[in-house]
Amino acid sequence: MDPRIRRHAEIIVDHSVKVEKGDTVQVAAPAVAEDLVVALYEQLGERGAKPSLSMRSSRADRAFLRACDTDDFELHEHSMAEMEETDAVIIVKGSENAAETSDVPPEKVAARTSANAPIQRERMGKRWVGTQFPAPGEAQLAEMRTSSYEEFVYGAMNKDWDEQREFQRQMVEILDPADEMRIVSGDTTDLTMSISGMKTINDYGEKNLPGGEVFTAPVPDSVKGEVLFDKPVMRQGREIEGAWLRFEGGEVVEHNAEKNEDVLVGVLDTDEGARRLGELGIGMNRDIDRFSYNMLFDEKMGDTIHLAIGKAIRETVPEERPYNESAAHLDMIVDMSENSFIEVDGEIVQRDGTFRFEDNFDE
Amino acid sequence: MDPRIRRHAEIIVDHSVKVEKGDTVQVAAPAVAEDLVVALYEQLGERGAKPSLSMRSSRADRAFLRACDTDDFELHEHSMAEMEETDAVIIVKGSENAAETSDVPPEKVAARTSANAPIQRERMGKRWVGTQFPAPGEAQLAEMRTSSYEEFVYGAMNKDWDEQREFQRQMVEILDPADEMRIVSGDTTDLTMSISGMKTINDYGEKNLPGGEVFTAPVPDSVKGEVLFDKPVMRQGREIEGAWLRFEGGEVVEHNAEKNEDVLVGVLDTDEGARRLGELGIGMNRDIDRFSYNMLFDEKMGDTIHLAIGKAIRETVPEERPYNESAAHLDMIVDMSENSFIEVDGEIVQRDGTFRFEDNFDE
Repeated sequence: MDPRIRRHAEIIVDHSVKVEKGDTVQVAAPAVAEDLVVALYEQLGERGAKPSLSMRSSRADRAFLRACDTDDFELHEHSMAEMEETDAVIIVKGSENAAETSDVPPEKVAARTSANAPIQRERMGKRWVGTQFPAPGEAQLAEMRTSSYEEFVYGAMNKDWDEQREFQRQMVEILDPADEMRIVSGDTTDLTMSISGMKTINDYGEKNLPGGEVFTAPVPDSVKGEVLFDKPVMRQGREIEGAWLRFEGGEVVEHNAEKNEDVLVGVLDTDEGARRLGELGIGMNRDIDRFSYNMLFDEKMGDTIHLAIGKAIRETVPEERPYNESAAHLDMIVDMSENSFIEVDGEIVQRDGTFRFEDNFDE
Repeated sequence: MDPRIRRHAEIIVDHSVKVEKGDTVQVAAPAVAEDLVVALYEQLGERGAKPSLSMRSSRADRAFLRACDTDDFELHEHSMAEMEETDAVIIVKGSENAAETSDVPPEKVAARTSANAPIQRERMGKRWVGTQFPAPGEAQLAEMRTSSYEEFVYGAMNKDWDEQREFQRQMVEILDPADEMRIVSGDTTDLTMSISGMKTINDYGEKNLPGGEVFTAPVPDSVKGEVLFDKPVMRQGREIEGAWLRFEGGEVVEHNAEKNEDVLVGVLDTDEGARRLGELGIGMNRDIDRFSYNMLFDEKMGDTIHLAIGKAIRETVPEERPYNESAAHLDMIVDMSENSFIEVDGEIVQRDGTFRFEDNFDE
C-alpha cells in the first residue's frame, strides 16, 4: 500500500479524532477510497477500537433517488441510535466522477438531508473529521492528473500539525482580542467589520483534514464596503465567477457576478441571514498552493481569506454576542497574495500574504 | 449498464425476495458488485421500498482482524435492531480476489461469526436471498476469463424460474412421499438411506440465486454403503479431492481422500453429528454445466447429487423426525452423468442424469 495512505490514516486516528482503546468508530467512505478504509481498519484494530463501516455508493444513491416517486423520507432510526453510541466519526470524501449525482432533483436531496438532520446534529457532538481521498473525480475537478492530485492532497494533509498549530496560533492571538478588521485587495476589495467579542478558532487538522485556517465571525450588522471574490466558487455543480458584493449596515445592498449570477442570487435569497456574513477565515496552509474547486482545500489555501454569507459557525459566537442564523452558508475566497493587506485595530497584520509575525514590515 | 445486471436485479427483487411497497430492504454487497447495487437501488426505488446498504470490504475486514489482538467480539446491537425491523435481505457475493482473507486466523473469524450469530438467526426468519456477482475473484476460481464467467453466471440465474420450478416439482413429487433411496455411480458409489417422513424442498431461486436443486434429509441412522465424491470440494481455501466415505448405521466408519484428507478429517471431527449425513440434494439446473468451485453453483449443477455431512437443514426435518445436529455442514458432490442411477423405493428415477419423467426407461 502507498505509504502516504498509511500516514494519512495515522494522522486521522491519532491527531484528528484521537482514537482510544474501546472507542466505537464509524468510517463513512465511498468505495473508491477502499485503500484508506483498509489502512484505517488496520490502525483501529491496533488501537483496540471497534470500527463500523458505512460505505457509500453515489451511483446507487442517484439511481434510488431518481427512481422513487416520493419526497417523504423518514429518519433512519437505527442510524440515529448507532450515532448516539458512536465515539468518533471519520467521513471520507472522494468520487470517481464528481458529477455522478448531477441529475438528481435538488428537492429530493434536500428532503432527505432534512429527514436525516438529527443524525448530523448528533454527529456534531462527537469527535469527527471530514477528509479527502485523492480520487479521480476530484482530480478532474482540480484539472490535475490523478498522481499529481495525490501529491497535492497528501502534501496538504500529511504534515506536522503541531508546527502548523503553533504557526496559526500567532494569528489567533491577534484576532481573538481584536475589535476592528479591514481587508483590502487591489481596487476591488475594501471591507471593514467588527469582530469584537467573537471567538477565533485555530483549525489545525482536527475536524477538517487538511486543516489550516483560523476563523471567526463578523458582528453581523458591522460589515461595510465592497469585496470581489476573485477565486471561483462551486455551488450545485455550477461555478460562480467574479462574485462581487457591496455591504451596508452588514447587509448585501448590491451584487454582481461575471458568470452564474443567478446561483449567487439564489443563495442570497435563501433568507435574511443569507445576505449577511457569518464567517471570516484566514487561509494559512501554504502546502495548498492552488485552487482545486474543493472548499475543504480552497478555504485553507495560503495567501487567501474567505468570507461566508449565511450561517455563522456556532463555536465562534459566544452566548451574549449576535449570531447570524441562516439555512445557507456559502464560502467565497479573496486572493491576498498581491496588492493586499489585512488591518487589525489600525495595524497591518498581513501584507501580500506575509504575516506581521513573519516580517516586521520595517521597510 | 449491462442489461443482464438489470435483469438479475429484477429477478432478485420480484422473484427471490418479492419486494413490496414500503418494505425495508437491506442490500449487503462488496464494492466490486456496485453495478448490481445500482440496479437494485433503481428497482427498489421504483417499487417504493426503503433500501439500506451494507457494503463490505474484505480487505478492510482482513486488516482489522489481523491487527486487533482480541477474540472477544461483541454482538453489534444496532445491526441486530436493524435486522429485526428489516423485511428482506439481499446478500451479494463477489470478490476481486477470492483469497483476500486467506491469512486471517480462523479462530478470529469463528469468534466474530459466533458473536454475530443472533443477527444471522434473525435473518433466517426474513425473506432473504444469497446471490452472486460475476467478479474476477470467482472467475479465477472457476478458471474462466471474466466475460466467460459472466455468461456462465447469468445463464444460471437469469432464467424462467416458473418453468424450472415445474421441472423440479416432478422430482419433489417422487422424493417427498418416498421411504428408501439408493445412489449408485460406477464401482465407487453405492449408498442406501431412508428419507422416510422427511420433507423435500423445491429450490427455484428464492433463497439461493441461482437455485436449481431439490433437497431433503436422510434419516441419520439409516445411511449405509460407500460414496466417492468425484468433484472437488473447497474448504477454508483448500481443496479436498477424491473424498471417499463408508457409512455403517448412519456413521462414517472409514474415510479417505486423494488430497488434503486432513481437512476432511477436521470436519468429521467437529462433533458427533459431523460424521452423519444431514442433507441429500439433487442438482437440476442444467445451465450450470461445469464446476466453478463455488457451492452456490456447484450443488445445483445438472447430473449431480450432493450430500452434506453435518447439520441438517431445519425445514427438511419435521418436528417428530430425527434431526442431525452439528456445527459443521460440508456439501460434497457426486457426478451422476455416466454409469449412475438413483433408485427410489426400488424404482429407478434417474439414469445417467436423465429423469424418469423425461424418459420412461422403456429400453
